[in-house]
Parts: sequence; structure tokens; C-alpha cells
Amino acid sequence: MVEKLDRLKAILSEVADLKNAQALLVWDQETYMPPGGAAGRGYQVGTLAKIAHEKFTSDEVGQLLDDLEPMTSQLPSDADDACLIKITCRDYRKSKRVPSIWVEEDTRVTSNAYSVWEIAKASSNFAMFQPELEKIVALRRQYADFFKPYAHVYDPLLDNFEPGLKTAEVEQIFNKLRPQQVALIHAIAEKTGPDNSFLKASYPERAQLDFGREVITRFGFDWQRGREDISVHPFTTSFNTGDVRITTRINQNQLETGIFGTMHEAGHGMYEQGIAPALERTPLSGVPSLAIHESQSRLWENLVGRSRPFWMYFYPRLQQLFPGQLGNVSLDAFYRGINRVQPGLIRVEADEATYNLHIMLRLELEIALMEGSLEVKDLPDAWNERMGEFLGLTPPDDARGVLQDVHWSSGHFGYFSTYALGNLVSAQIWEALHADIPDLEKGIIRGDFQPLLTWLREKIHRHGSKFEPQDLIRKVTGTDITPEPYLRYLTTKYSEIYHL
Amino acid sequence: MVEKLDRLKAILSEVADLKNAQALLVWDQETYMPPGGAAGRGYQVGTLAKIAHEKFTSDEVGQLLDDLEPMTSQLPSDADDACLIKITCRDYRKSKRVPSIWVEEDTRVTSNAYSVWEIAKASSNFAMFQPELEKIVALRRQYADFFKPYAHVYDPLLDNFEPGLKTAEVEQIFNKLRPQQVALIHAIAEKTGPDNSFLKASYPERAQLDFGREVITRFGFDWQRGREDISVHPFTTSFNTGDVRITTRINQNQLETGIFGTMHEAGHGMYEQGIAPALERTPLSGVPSLAIHESQSRLWENLVGRSRPFWMYFYPRLQQLFPGQLGNVSLDAFYRGINRVQPGLIRVEADEATYNLHIMLRLELEIALMEGSLEVKDLPDAWNERMGEFLGLTPPDDARGVLQDVHWSSGHFGYFSTYALGNLVSAQIWEALHADIPDLEKGIIRGDFQPLLTWLREKIHRHGSKFEPQDLIRKVTGTDITPEPYLRYLTTKYSEIYHL
Repeated sequence: MVEKLDRLKAILSEVADLKNAQALLVWDQETYMPPGGAAGRGYQVGTLAKIAHEKFTSDEVGQLLDDLEPMTSQLPSDADDACLIKITCRDYRKSKRVPSIWVEEDTRVTSNAYSVWEIAKASSNFAMFQPELEKIVALRRQYADFFKPYAHVYDPLLDNFEPGLKTAEVEQIFNKLRPQQVALIHAIAEKTGPDNSFLKASYPERAQLDFGREVITRFGFDWQRGREDISVHPFTTSFNTGDVRITTRINQNQLETGIFGTMHEAGHGMYEQGIAPALERTPLSGVPSLAIHESQSRLWENLVGRSRPFWMYFYPRLQQLFPGQLGNVSLDAFYRGINRVQPGLIRVEADEATYNLHIMLRLELEIALMEGSLEVKDLPDAWNERMGEFLGLTPPDDARGVLQDVHWSSGHFGYFSTYALGNLVSAQIWEALHADIPDLEKGIIRGDFQPLLTWLREKIHRHGSKFEPQDLIRKVTGTDITPEPYLRYLTTKYSEIYHL
Repeated sequence: MVEKLDRLKAILSEVADLKNAQALLVWDQETYMPPGGAAGRGYQVGTLAKIAHEKFTSDEVGQLLDDLEPMTSQLPSDADDACLIKITCRDYRKSKRVPSIWVEEDTRVTSNAYSVWEIAKASSNFAMFQPELEKIVALRRQYADFFKPYAHVYDPLLDNFEPGLKTAEVEQIFNKLRPQQVALIHAIAEKTGPDNSFLKASYPERAQLDFGREVITRFGFDWQRGREDISVHPFTTSFNTGDVRITTRINQNQLETGIFGTMHEAGHGMYEQGIAPALERTPLSGVPSLAIHESQSRLWENLVGRSRPFWMYFYPRLQQLFPGQLGNVSLDAFYRGINRVQPGLIRVEADEATYNLHIMLRLELEIALMEGSLEVKDLPDAWNERMGEFLGLTPPDDARGVLQDVHWSSGHFGYFSTYALGNLVSAQIWEALHADIPDLEKGIIRGDFQPLLTWLREKIHRHGSKFEPQDLIRKVTGTDITPEPYLRYLTTKYSEIYHL
């Protein structure tokens, strides 16, 4: 049995190496690759993905898993080896349904589509992107078919980002969330919002970047095991726990873009840096689901980064860096300004009150595309129509509308709802954190984030993807994903700011 | 037959993808990777190398080559397919002798050794690097054994960089070159050298970088299909002809480091950018040998970049960028200054007259290590002793002695002599160029490098590695590798500068 386990681990470590190499190729594509490299990169990523898939879904792996599965009952259920076998069985059976040839084609198509999307977005030209997206949607339908019978055609896609969760469950959570979130926005809309014009002053890029780095260094982001670069769409990627990379973007006339984006990605990055080294080069050296991943980024970005205690510590430093721009803005005015609720066109710049509506819009469109009730060519109109309904806005062009997000060009259908779910989970975790560390805020006021990071490391990060995501959420927060803590958090926060 | 050829090409393109991905991993390691990534990167590079090797040396490839080899006689000898089969047969038979397990271990060892070398060099600590180098030498001996019987234990290593050339031939060429090169250095040493102290003024890094980019843009380096970054040891790498990357390093108080280093790497880079796209993703989409590669970098760096016509065009621009430093230095004084002969400790900073002696020193040491007449622990002493003999200098520390080059840490034994051979070939090509383009210099004075690049593209670049290197050299220059043109070039140049 030990020999079989070793053999399984040897194969899995090669698969991990291939996937990690592929992640570097993608990172490079989004940061430093010259335009001429796109076609070749598509082939390279496609080949690595195909070989990884072939190796992972080989009959030998299947046989080893069949032989090893009974062993798990003799091990503690949270033992690394037991979890490795369980999670690998789950992923194997799933991957086995997907032919290598599909994976290769999909990887090539999406790699190319990403490059096309970049240009299409820059020139706000949806027609240019449309044929690529049509290929991607067709491939996603094919993909869902591999998992027939399903309760809903969208389930197999969602499962790739939030294993175990069903479309019906997400709809149920969102149906509970939506009326209350909309009611809150309406209540806020009746009040005069705080001034936030100071955020649009001119903030030199270098100083913004430096401030962001100072903040996340204080959070505990480890630069010996990570770096930060600039990219069109900020993201986090990891090649092992010793090399976790985040990207950010800086807008000279929009202070919040860089600062909150950097904290967000650092939240992801610190999670990946916190995974136990013992899990390295196994399928457990990742995160259990994207909602949990997002709960970490949102927690650092919003529950910490948009809080009053955080700015009580960091605002003097920010004022020192930008005396001309912020010297006359009080801490209170700054705090209210960064928390102004203002329906906008761009998801990644949305405030906490309206953010989830951007997600619900995307989820509806993805489901409609998958169900076939919406065609790709009609997508811009459908987008703009819902943007009017949900947020009362009309995008002036597709760059600020349907082309704004990278996800569809990368084939990431099923991804978006995890952002909203992540928001909910972040508030659930925040309540659990407060129960364990009553004077959490006092530490933050002193710039001490150590207790917070230590708690997250202990309860969540170190486990990697050992546990099923819904199990981990229950274990950490005591309940399934639920909107109440998030609604409590929003209501308390905005009642104070807006005197509701 | 067509089907078999297609199948061969399909496998070879996957192997190419794996090698190109591996090249990106190495590029990243030397430019942007955080320290914590080293161990994981070693595994990733090792796994890709192993899989590429397994795929390339599979029995299926052997069978396909056996079946296809007779076909080549029916094709023109310079047809792409004929060359593909011939060169692939050569490489297959060679690779087949090397077990995958050796490749994997070697790649892991050298990947780690590179990281150790970086730290060892920074702290000038040979003892730290010694155990790594011992592993590397032991692996090289094992490697040579796979090719028994050989005329010389060093032959199999040399063949990796200069296919077809034997140790005895290199020694013969060097034996012819050395006395004349030493005589020239002695003649120069009797004269007073031109002043070059202005090169040590303070030149802001950004402006140096910009000037280098301006120069190589004028040469014809294509930024749509390439980029330039900073690294400890400058190098060129390519992931396909659409993505060719060079690196450089800038020294604020040593103007020549950045400028000539950049031209050197651009020479390599333009070669890779000039390979016919039709050869992409095959073993022919590379260069036939390192001497030929180096002939291109040396040609642009020295025969162009250290020439009077080049500076007649570019010196006014350089003066404009650095008026304080160079405003009072005449073109003539500048030209003489950059060509001052001055034995130095550092190979990459050596002038054209002494450069080859650095190579001969390294070749002797490599051969001695391989023959077993020298042990790794005695290497620093052996190095320092020869440095005294050859150039009359004693390194003050190992960082400026035995630890200066990256090559050994990467396992590149057999590489160094190609630098000197490249010098010789560059002068052979230069003479052939002049025969075809009599007013080459007139163009350079006007900043017109188009005829030069076009000639190189046509005669050399586009062919990739279709031809055996020694054949290509004969085809382009009319002779085997020979020292006379280089000696003629050096003698003419220095006679004028030093009034010999």
C-alpha cells in the first residue's frame, strides 16, 4: 500500500509541476509577453494542459485510486493521506469524463481568445471578440454534456469553481440576498452621499504602488515568497507556496483602484502562501473553492481595508505621502468617502452595497447562454438592458460594458457567483473571528494584523484543499453559506455612514 | 509516408512546446522569480525536461525516423522536410543514449545550483558552491560515458554546443590562434594606451538603457516579437520566433557594460527572430551551433558596435544624452577609448584582443576537470594561477575569479570555446559580407543597417538549424573555422589605434 501511495504521489507531483509551469506561462502572458508571442504561447499552454490531463486521467491513476480508496477508512479523516486520496478520487472521476482532446482545444481557444479580448476591449469592439466567445460557449455546452445527467446545464461549470454547490442553491441564496440588498441601496439613495471627489485628484503612480506595498507588507505578505507586477486585470497566481504572485493596476486619478485592488490580491496571495508546505506538489496544495478564496481577498480588502480602524492606523501615512491631495481631508471624511455608495458600470470598482448586483447580472447571462435562451451576438444588448434594470445605468461602450471582465475570454463560466458568495463567507468568517478575538479591532488600530493572519492561517490557509469547501465553511463558521452576516455587516456600516 | 511525417511532426511539436515552456521557466528564474520559488522551479523544470526527453526518445519516434529516413534521398537536400528528418535522426540517436532519469536529475541539480551560485557569487564564497559543482562535474562524467567510445572525454560535451566539432580540432585552432594573439597583446602592451577614463563617469541607468534600445531598434530588433529585461548575467532566449527575449545589465560607472552587452544580446535576438516561421515547433527552429550564434552577437557587438563607422552615426546622439560626461570627448578619443586593450579579470568585459585568452583558460580547466587531473576543490587555485600566467592578474576574490560566469552552475561544460570560435566565425562572415556589399561601411555611417541584416537573414538566420553547423560555415564563408580573418581584423584595427 505504501508503495502504491508513493507511486500515486510521484504521478501527482508531475501533474502539479505541469500545472504550475502552465500557471507561469499564463502569468507571463498577462504581464510581460510581447504581442508576437501569443500564438506560440497558445500551443505551449495547450500542450502542457493536455499532457497534465493525460497523466492525471491515466488508467494507472485510476487503478491506484481504486486500490488505495479503502485505506482511507483506516486513517483519521483529516490525515493528509486520507484527504489526498479522497480529493484525488473526486477530481479523477470528474476529469475522466473530459477527453484530453477537449482540454487541449479549449486551452488553445481560450489562450487565443484572451489575446483577442485584450485588443477588443482596448478598441471597445465586441464584434471582434464575438467569434471567440461563440467558440468558448460552444465548448462549455460540450463540457456540460460530459456530465449528463445533470439537474441544471450550469451545474458542471459551477462545480469547477465551487465544488459540490448546485445552481439551485446559489439561486436560493441570491433570492434571499437580493431584496434586502436592493432595499439597502434604495434607503441609501434617499440620503446625500459623502463627498469623495478627493479620490480623483492626481496621485503619482509610484507613490500609490509604494503605499500598497507598505500596507500588504504590514498585513504579512511575504516578499521572499512572492512578487507584485502590473497587469490589465489584477490577479493572483501561485507556482508553489514559495512563489505566489499578485498583480495590480494603478489609476493616477482614481486612488481607490490601486489601493483596494492591491489589498484584495494580497488577501488571495497570503492564503496561497499559508498553505502547508507538506501539501506541495499534490492536488491538496490549492484552495478548496473560489468562494473561500474570495472570502480571504474580500476580508482584507473590505472588512479590514475599508474599515475605520484600518485607516486610523494608515491614514496619517497616506496623508504624509499625498499632503497636497489629502492634507485637508479629515480621517472621518476620508473613511466616508471611500465608502460612498454609487452605482457604477465597472464591477471591480463597485462599492460593497452594489457589488453583488454586478454578479447577479453576470450569473443570469451565463445561465441564459448555457440554456440557449440567449445568443452571443445578443449579449451586449442583454447586458446593457440589465445594467439599466439593476443599477439604472447605460454603458457608453462595450469596453465599460460586456467586455470589461477577463473571465469569459479565459473560459471561466461559473466563476462570477463565487465573488458574491465570497462576500457572504467573508462576513461569516468575520463574525467567527470576533468571537475568538474580541479585541481584533484594537489590534488593527495599532497596525497589528498578526492575530488576524494567524487565525486565518490556522483555521483555513494551512489546510489547502484538504476538505470539501462546504464542509470547511461549516467547520469555520458553524453554518452553510448564508447571507445574514453580510447583510448585518452592510446594514451596520452604512447605517452609521448614511445615518439610515 | 505523408501520414508518418505528419505524426512525427505532431510529436516533435509537443516536444518543442515543452522545451519552449521550459525556456520561459528559466527566463523567469533569472529575471523575476522571488527567492522562495527556487526549489519548486527546480522540480518544474526537471519534470518538463524529463517529459520532453521521454517523448523525443520514444520508440515510436525511432520507428518513424527509421521509416522516413529513406525518403530524404528523394527530396532536395535543402528541403525543410529532408533537413527535419536528417537533423532529427542525428539528435534522436544522441538523446537515445541518455536515460531520462539522468536528464531529470541533471535538470534539478543545475536548477538548484544556479540559485546557489547566485548567492555564492554575491558573497564570493566558492566553498558554498563547491558541492553543487562537484555534483555537476560528476553528472558530466556520467554523461560522457553514455557516448563511449570517444576520442576524448570532452568530445560529447562539446558536441552539445558545437555539433560535429571535436576537442582535437578546437585545440588545433586555438594552438594556431594563441601565439599570434599573444604577440599582438605584447606589441600593444609596449605602447601607451588611449585614455578611457570617461567611461567611468556617472551615467544614469535609465538613459543608458534607453540608448541601448535606440541602437538595437535601429539594428532591426523587433519589439513586437521581443523584449528586454535586466538580469545578473545577460542572455537571450526564445519561446518561438514571435517571442524572443534578451536581458542586459547596466553599470552606472561603466558605460561599456550596458551598451555593448545590449548590442551583443540583440545580435543573438535578431538571429532568433529571423528564423523562418515555417520551421516553428520543429527541431529546426533553433540555431545550428553556439559558435554560429555567437558569430552573430559578436558581429553586432564588435565588428559593428566597436567600429568607427558605427560611432560616426551614433556618437552625436550619445553625446546629446550625456553632455556633461562626453561633451568634451571627441569622436576619435571615444573610439580609441572603447577599444583600449587592458587585460582584466572579467571575461564579459574583456576587450577584443584579450577576450580569447579568457576562453582558453576556461577550456583548459574544463578539460582538466573532465579528465580528472583537476578536482573541483582545487579549481579556485588553478583559476588564479592561470589568470596570472595568461593575463598577469590575480583575482582579489572568487566573485571576480572562478565564480564570475553562470555557465558551470547551469551545467554548460563545453560551452566556452564556442565564444572564441564565434569570434573567429564573425570575422569570416565579415569578410564574406564585404565581398557581397562593398559599401557596407557607408551604410553604417548613415545608420542604415538594413543591407547587413538582410544579408544575414538570407544567408544564415532563416535556415534555423536545417544544416550541420560546419557545413553552414563553409557555405557562407567558403572555409572551415579558421583564425586568419579574425587575426587580420584585429591586426588592422589595433595597428591603426596603437600605431603598431
